[in-house]
Amino acid sequence: MKAVVYHGPFTLAVEEVADPRIEGPLDAVIRITTANICGSDLHPYEGRAALEKGMVLGHENMGIVEEVGSAVTRIRVGDRVSVPFNLACGCCRNCNDGFTSACLRANPSGNPGAGYGYPKMGPYWGGQAELLRVPWADFNLLELPAGTEHEADYTMLSDIFPTGYHGTELAHVAPGKSVAVFGAGPVGLMSAYSALLRGASQVFVVDKEPDRLALAAQIGATPVDLGEVDPAEVIMAGTDGFGVDCGVEAVGFQAHDAHGEEHPAMVLDNLVGVVRATGHIGVVGVYVPQDPGAATDGAKQGRVGFDYGTAFEKGISIGSGQCPVKAYNRELRDLITRGRAAPSFIVSHEVPLADAVDAYDKFDKRVDGYTKVLLHPAA
Amino acid sequence: MKAVVYHGPFTLAVEEVADPRIEGPLDAVIRITTANICGSDLHPYEGRAALEKGMVLGHENMGIVEEVGSAVTRIRVGDRVSVPFNLACGCCRNCNDGFTSACLRANPSGNPGAGYGYPKMGPYWGGQAELLRVPWADFNLLELPAGTEHEADYTMLSDIFPTGYHGTELAHVAPGKSVAVFGAGPVGLMSAYSALLRGASQVFVVDKEPDRLALAAQIGATPVDLGEVDPAEVIMAGTDGFGVDCGVEAVGFQAHDAHGEEHPAMVLDNLVGVVRATGHIGVVGVYVPQDPGAATDGAKQGRVGFDYGTAFEKGISIGSGQCPVKAYNRELRDLITRGRAAPSFIVSHEVPLADAVDAYDKFDKRVDGYTKVLLHPAA
Amino acid sequence: MKAVVYHGPFTLAVEEVADPRIEGPLDAVIRITTANICGSDLHPYEGRAALEKGMVLGHENMGIVEEVGSAVTRIRVGDRVSVPFNLACGCCRNCNDGFTSACLRANPSGNPGAGYGYPKMGPYWGGQAELLRVPWADFNLLELPAGTEHEADYTMLSDIFPTGYHGTELAHVAPGKSVAVFGAGPVGLMSAYSALLRGASQVFVVDKEPDRLALAAQIGATPVDLGEVDPAEVIMAGTDGFGVDCGVEAVGFQAHDAHGEEHPAMVLDNLVGVVRATGHIGVVGVYVPQDPGAATDGAKQGRVGFDYGTAFEKGISIGSGQCPVKAYNRELRDLITRGRAAPSFIVSHEVPLADAVDAYDKFDKRVDGYTKVLLHPAA
Amino acid sequence: MKAVVYHGPFTLAVEEVADPRIEGPLDAVIRITTANICGSDLHPYEGRAALEKGMVLGHENMGIVEEVGSAVTRIRVGDRVSVPFNLACGCCRNCNDGFTSACLRANPSGNPGAGYGYPKMGPYWGGQAELLRVPWADFNLLELPAGTEHEADYTMLSDIFPTGYHGTELAHVAPGKSVAVFGAGPVGLMSAYSALLRGASQVFVVDKEPDRLALAAQIGATPVDLGEVDPAEVIMAGTDGFGVDCGVEAVGFQAHDAHGEEHPAMVLDNLVGVVRATGHIGVVGVYVPQDPGAATDGAKQGRVGFDYGTAFEKGISIGSGQCPVKAYNRELRDLITRGRAAPSFIVSHEVPLADAVDAYDKFDKRVDGYTKVLLHPAA
Repeated sequence: MKAVVYHGPFTLAVEEVADPRIEGPLDAVIRITTANICGSDLHPYEGRAALEKGMVLGHENMGIVEEVGSAVTRIRVGDRVSVPFNLACGCCRNCNDGFTSACLRANPSGNPGAGYGYPKMGPYWGGQAELLRVPWADFNLLELPAGTEHEADYTMLSDIFPTGYHGTELAHVAPGKSVAVFGAGPVGLMSAYSALLRGASQVFVVDKEPDRLALAAQIGATPVDLGEVDPAEVIMAGTDGFGVDCGVEAVGFQAHDAHGEEHPAMVLDNLVGVVRATGHIGVVGVYVPQDPGAATDGAKQGRVGFDYGTAFEKGISIGSGQCPVKAYNRELRDLITRGRAAPSFIVSHEVPLADAVDAYDKFDKRVDGYTKVLLHPAA
Repeated sequence: MKAVVYHGPFTLAVEEVADPRIEGPLDAVIRITTANICGSDLHPYEGRAALEKGMVLGHENMGIVEEVGSAVTRIRVGDRVSVPFNLACGCCRNCNDGFTSACLRANPSGNPGAGYGYPKMGPYWGGQAELLRVPWADFNLLELPAGTEHEADYTMLSDIFPTGYHGTELAHVAPGKSVAVFGAGPVGLMSAYSALLRGASQVFVVDKEPDRLALAAQIGATPVDLGEVDPAEVIMAGTDGFGVDCGVEAVGFQAHDAHGEEHPAMVLDNLVGVVRATGHIGVVGVYVPQDPGAATDGAKQGRVGFDYGTAFEKGISIGSGQCPVKAYNRELRDLITRGRAAPSFIVSHEVPLADAVDAYDKFDKRVDGYTKVLLHPAA
Repeated sequence: MKAVVYHGPFTLAVEEVADPRIEGPLDAVIRITTANICGSDLHPYEGRAALEKGMVLGHENMGIVEEVGSAVTRIRVGDRVSVPFNLACGCCRNCNDGFTSACLRANPSGNPGAGYGYPKMGPYWGGQAELLRVPWADFNLLELPAGTEHEADYTMLSDIFPTGYHGTELAHVAPGKSVAVFGAGPVGLMSAYSALLRGASQVFVVDKEPDRLALAAQIGATPVDLGEVDPAEVIMAGTDGFGVDCGVEAVGFQAHDAHGEEHPAMVLDNLVGVVRATGHIGVVGVYVPQDPGAATDGAKQGRVGFDYGTAFEKGISIGSGQCPVKAYNRELRDLITRGRAAPSFIVSHEVPLADAVDAYDKFDKRVDGYTKVLLHPAA
Repeated sequence: MKAVVYHGPFTLAVEEVADPRIEGPLDAVIRITTANICGSDLHPYEGRAALEKGMVLGHENMGIVEEVGSAVTRIRVGDRVSVPFNLACGCCRNCNDGFTSACLRANPSGNPGAGYGYPKMGPYWGGQAELLRVPWADFNLLELPAGTEHEADYTMLSDIFPTGYHGTELAHVAPGKSVAVFGAGPVGLMSAYSALLRGASQVFVVDKEPDRLALAAQIGATPVDLGEVDPAEVIMAGTDGFGVDCGVEAVGFQAHDAHGEEHPAMVLDNLVGVVRATGHIGVVGVYVPQDPGAATDGAKQGRVGFDYGTAFEKGISIGSGQCPVKAYNRELRDLITRGRAAPSFIVSHEVPLADAVDAYDKFDKRVDGYTKVLLHPAA
């Protein structure tokens, strides 16, 4: 089959590889209809996270079931399905508790959590390809309505719609609450969109890219351009001086200030400042335990010297980490199916799989409006 | 009346001051029967937190209602009551939401949260004295059974029993869970005790003081002497290598390593290490936004460079801050009244108010087994 | 002042009565700008619930603070405020726990819960009048933005918007869930509206009045006309045979079947039928412990012989009771203020207070489209 | 193998039947070490619930894994395991949500929920036998420490310890709360025991059998003999007239009054009376949709005419239904393993499987102190 293969930093190829096949009785093989490029795919792409050469990229996948193993009984050949980016066994303690993001059995390294085509997430090939093998298929796959309707919406269910939603869950967003989302990339926009779906009364979105801020405004959020104004001032003024109830971190450790300098603590500091006493922060932007490319010794070891003293004094809670997609994808699917949510508003480009290398390049350079790219192997 | 008056670092006096009196229609005046010295009283005592001279100390107070204002209708003269250390108005948004620890109206500084005899908590005199004025008495005071029974237990209701319990709440302690409490001072012991009351299956308590560890063992917890062993090793070994479900931080920014050196990030680092992926940390040890006495520039500004990268990767949540006493004190009172809890096990000394200066001195120096001291003005 | 006075079943008068005045230091007197007629006002009006003659009716009130008692410090003269229909002391155990609907001190009868102008809720006059006395004003009153904007929206905050919302809370409505609301009266419509605000994926509203069903459709719900179709069939078909996740009962004990016969168990039976196994039912339609006008001996004693056996087998939970308005009104206010909610869509008529008798008559007879009537004393 | 086979009401035999064997790749076969007789086994035994002849009884099972199917990878031959009485697929929507009690796929009838050797729960043989087939073994089985220690405690994990605990969960039991448990059979005692483990301040247990009440007293609950006193009077007096926060129904539809007459609504009526306004009731005593043997037409159709009007007025919630064992069994296991719980206190008899017919007879007649019987196939 054709697949996007990693050959090293900034070096990808769409090339022929062996077809995935059923390896165990609980496997399925999916014919990919849509696979998205994720912002976190840029971590290995840029060499910021080590990935073995030869790996097929892609953890935002959906398609049609092509074949199932002998013990698969729930999912059937021909089903249209979304593939959660967390690959989980379904029967360990963490899976039982709903934390498929920390499955104890799927990652051969022994670390909690596995996934497709991603550093440290196990040997599983990704889905930027014609076919994808999915272990524990009956547990992992989410069935979708047959057909091709809402394809660009449903494809958001594998990662960023649930991930954005998870940020609002960690931040305790609830009806009537005020929310500040830092970062208007795809995940930040999905957090803002989720906050509005959940009945937030006001959602600030902070970024410095005009096109992203325009999308925030389009869905009913209040864009805050940190290149133009001081976000803290705007948010405090917009909340009678109290600050927001909920804050979402959708940037991660590679945060850059207005001058392009990297400051891992910058966004957390901002959030501690604008979230009101007794409020909650949800962090879905990625932080890492080791970052060899970081500027300081502390940051190289995952140390983020943010203003925790103030967070304590204000009694702010901080929830963090990867989204357990299965905790949310069924309900978000139903919102799409019933016409109540349409997360595809963030899609900037849909291209054939063959154009993936060019798409990565432009997405990484943020040129030509590349915000969210969908790859279609059959196109 | 006689009261413990602050005259500067390490300089207290038990001296005659003006009697508190009813200043407004919602006030009550309490005749103190017991007032405890709290570990946090040592912050101003040691000059680590600025306090105006002439302030009466003491925020762990109980007694008998002596007089009430004209609009007090629930509490009556003669009632035996516990006084929560947070002083709250009962009708602002935070009080409505149960966060009496962040009352928006009681602190004239405008900062959320007020209290008695404590830095930055407003002008309210403390209760290490014969009498105490309590504003918004109907809202703040918790009624106790008449008489003198369980005095040393009920006196824990004003602060450290709820505060220890709050640590377990922030850490999501629930039946069957495993818990690690760092710090076996009074608050840490109350956290361990609360964890056991809530049905934890296993509670590790980490400290280096043998007498405190002995108390931990006495209530059924597993003492871990960090002077003798590596707590992380012991806890991981005791949890089949997974780590504990819940971690409680009961030390604060003044944590010292085995060599007596201060490391504000040490305990959080330890907790991030021993709490399992998907687990929760509750922080009730105090961290501050400004600490002029800190060793590093970051720490002076409240920055605590702990290993947040690992916390993110493990999906650990961190809840922080002062306890809203009213959220817990009624239920904890009922446990005492029904004979199901007896938190007085931590009391090391009960002395007359007149001996307060000596008691502070010994408690600060940790000599003669001074762990938890109760002052009795009428003794 | 002028007020709507109860003289017996079907006998009201708008007449001159003594002005309410400050009776205690925590009182406020409000100049009513809008007071609504509630469906439950018809219980005494129809003689179905005993009310003492001379009582001023009305528990859905808002206005401008005219005067405050000497101990009122938060609310100020001139503030525009909403008055929650539950009158609560703010410092008893139930108030502390957020259950202002079950205040232990406000009702002289000793029963939990007090209110304005309503049977069994204490001696407090209602607000269908020029003025209203509000005890414990600092605790009870919700401040609104100054001016007259959104008057018809904000007036829903005193009762039916929170009550409808409470139904969805008891029914565990959450993003993506499917919901069936029985009853499209004002409360039912507010439940449907709240369910959509909270992100429900699908909301069925069952009634037999075309004008009410039209309002349900207008807000995005799916109207189900029980005079035309079998609601159970429609709902099961619309949910792939599973039934809805959440059910809201917004009818009460006076439910009538298609032939106009009263069946107190009918709606609960329907809900047990259409709510899926493991689902939740919230009941905000009123049921009573004694109903002298009921058809059967059991019903006279509040016994409702619904199909509990099936509820047990399906593992359905049932939450019930009066709404604690303060638990929701601040957040719902913010949704109105920020332009995210406009519950005034249910208002059918706005009339001067002088026309109240006629309005009651038409509302009771359900003629001329009388669905929700606002009374304006100053009009 | 030998097994307890059902031949009709009051007609059982311990006889030779075909050995269960691996039928699918996800199956395991367990060699039973202990199987308990449950009170609900008496429903088919007494002919109150129809069961097909030839069925092997028993849904409270534990043992050693004898053989596993080809796709079982978590559980291994030789593992000591507890078998939850709910048999669940692990990958349907209800299983995903933690409701293994309502698995949508395991019961061929299409009704939610399956189990072993029980009416309406599917064709699966029970475990009162030497061997038991367990489908979806990796998902269903709970691993236990190797050996034979705590056998009589761990055997409670398959049903009644979690079921009793579930009653306290549905009743919102929390630290410091007061609780009334109606019914001191094994489930009621497990509810009382669970309430105390969870930190309840006071637990009333109501029954009329002295031996059962003695067990309640032994664990620290307050026994209330309904043959001697009025339970409502005792409970109201013991709670300052307020009633308990939480009520647990552990009797079911076959409740008998002091004169031995059956009253399906009696226990719910009592609970509505003694649970305080805003309180919660958890029902784990079984109610059924159809009861041909009931006394009234309503009861035959599962209608239970309890005092719902008062429940509404008091704002009481009612949670109901079968326990999803996997939601609790891991944590309860850990409490046993760590020496913090010992539910075996309710065991009255341990007998060889060969004596099962006699044990059923005596348990049904409640003679010779037969309260809870463990069957040991290997004894």
